[in-house]
Amino acid sequence: MVDKLKIGIVGYGNIGKAVELAVQNNPDMVVEGIITRRPESVSPISGVQVLSIQEAEKRKDCFDVFVLCGGSATDLPKQGPFFARLGNCVDSYDTHANMYQYFDSINKVAKENKNTYVISAGWDPGTFSMERVFQNTFLPGAKPYTFYGLTPRGGLSMGHSDAVRRVEGVANARQYTHANHEAIEGVRSGENLDLIPRDMHWRECFVVAKKGADLNKIEQDIKTMPGYFAPYHTTVTFVSQEELDEIDKKRGMCHDGLVLAVGETSPGKWAVMEYKNQWDSNPEATANIMLAYARAGYLLNKKGKFKLNELD
Amino acid sequence: MVDKLKIGIVGYGNIGKAVELAVQNNPDMVVEGIITRRPESVSPISGVQVLSIQEAEKRKDCFDVFVLCGGSATDLPKQGPFFARLGNCVDSYDTHANMYQYFDSINKVAKENKNTYVISAGWDPGTFSMERVFQNTFLPGAKPYTFYGLTPRGGLSMGHSDAVRRVEGVANARQYTHANHEAIEGVRSGENLDLIPRDMHWRECFVVAKKGADLNKIEQDIKTMPGYFAPYHTTVTFVSQEELDEIDKKRGMCHDGLVLAVGETSPGKWAVMEYKNQWDSNPEATANIMLAYARAGYLLNKKGKFKLNELD
Repeated sequence: MVDKLKIGIVGYGNIGKAVELAVQNNPDMVVEGIITRRPESVSPISGVQVLSIQEAEKRKDCFDVFVLCGGSATDLPKQGPFFARLGNCVDSYDTHANMYQYFDSINKVAKENKNTYVISAGWDPGTFSMERVFQNTFLPGAKPYTFYGLTPRGGLSMGHSDAVRRVEGVANARQYTHANHEAIEGVRSGENLDLIPRDMHWRECFVVAKKGADLNKIEQDIKTMPGYFAPYHTTVTFVSQEELDEIDKKRGMCHDGLVLAVGETSPGKWAVMEYKNQWDSNPEATANIMLAYARAGYLLNKKGKFKLNELD
Repeated sequence: MVDKLKIGIVGYGNIGKAVELAVQNNPDMVVEGIITRRPESVSPISGVQVLSIQEAEKRKDCFDVFVLCGGSATDLPKQGPFFARLGNCVDSYDTHANMYQYFDSINKVAKENKNTYVISAGWDPGTFSMERVFQNTFLPGAKPYTFYGLTPRGGLSMGHSDAVRRVEGVANARQYTHANHEAIEGVRSGENLDLIPRDMHWRECFVVAKKGADLNKIEQDIKTMPGYFAPYHTTVTFVSQEELDEIDKKRGMCHDGLVLAVGETSPGKWAVMEYKNQWDSNPEATANIMLAYARAGYLLNKKGKFKLNELD
């Protein structure tokens, strides 16, 4: 009998629950425990043990890989370096702007403790990053473009939904990102390769307003929000909480994306490479990808490979 | 100044000429020479030296990687093991049925001579094979389907064109493979995952008949040809050589394909992964991919990695 890979799930939100489910798709793995800051508030679907972070530290040798499921804004910058000390890890850190800094903070600790830690192992960053490298390699000089929300339902953006919820007068909100299909066709045909954000996507907001809130002001505050909405065409639709529940039921946590590169192999001879994901459940798909990297990280570590330059 | 990777092009047909062009897209490479059985009959576009196979053997140390551009049926089974002895190599061997046998014949010689040889480094087998592994890994249990010829012009199949040309009474021919788009949609929606070859593709033949040939017999001989055409819906259109020249001009050596996998991350939650290539020039795109693997093989070899188990 071959031992199963013992997974520690750190954090029990959308991704943590999805990892618990995804382990069922991977017969070589088992959930050894769920690790959380608030063990008393967690009831795992599978009935496995729940540990505090301190308990997990004491029993670190019971885990083969920790799958860190916290958010990139505040959870991972603390939890990443902490768990890098305890064992092999994987996360889906996705703040592109702070990537190198985050990498350094992890790499130092993981190396010292001879642990293998795979950061940013979701789909973007993650599998999409890998495909961009392939596109550049197999089609030298081709520039990869990334589009999200190609289906009519669009793609639920957690970050943009959060941003809308922080607007004064907003009780609840969802933001679905939509690709501009003409822009995709423009890239595919090699005719429009000079795109700015507004050309590529538009943003659809469903907003539940607080009682008595100024709807015009909410709409303006959203549409002019720097970074998040100002650079895009944005629609704002006010709905009741019941209507938002209906939207959740229909669209759920769907998301999809496309990495597209075009180039000429010789003058006038076009080549197109496309990589596309479409998920009914973004957290569940992300969880499956993270587990594939968990397995890979564990195997690398068993071969004594935990320093980046030893992966060469 | 950094030395450029010195490429030896073995064979100067469609792929060989395309590799010569593709080196221009890769500024870290240079064509050191073209190696052919008939040096007297070859005039390279770039004016580089032309060598016989015997001359190449004598001057093997002048080359960093040999890119083998011969056919899989008769050229590579001989040339592969021969050049595996001389240096690092890459080829696009594509006879799926004999893959393991071919691998063994190469591996033995390459290992003994401490050379790194990448076989089957085109798009299928090649990048498509890699993507199928990813789809299986990231979406456990998902079965990948491969479709060719999704565009209206279809994809030129050299092997099937050759097969038609071998039919009695045929002077010249082209075969374009077409995907059945309903089958693709059936897979995407998760509703029709039980496909046989006839469901997935149909085959379009343009045939120039010899003077006085029996057209009905040609059509029957093509449509009933085991393996190549009998398992598919096939159309046969008789054309003049001038009309065939027009088709060549319009469609050229275009080809495209799709690797598609669907699965459920949990009951009712579908996930779709798609990888698509579309080439105006199949040989040129293949050549660029082969050069990416040539670079990779060279770098592995410099690190002393030439045995498969040392790649781990």
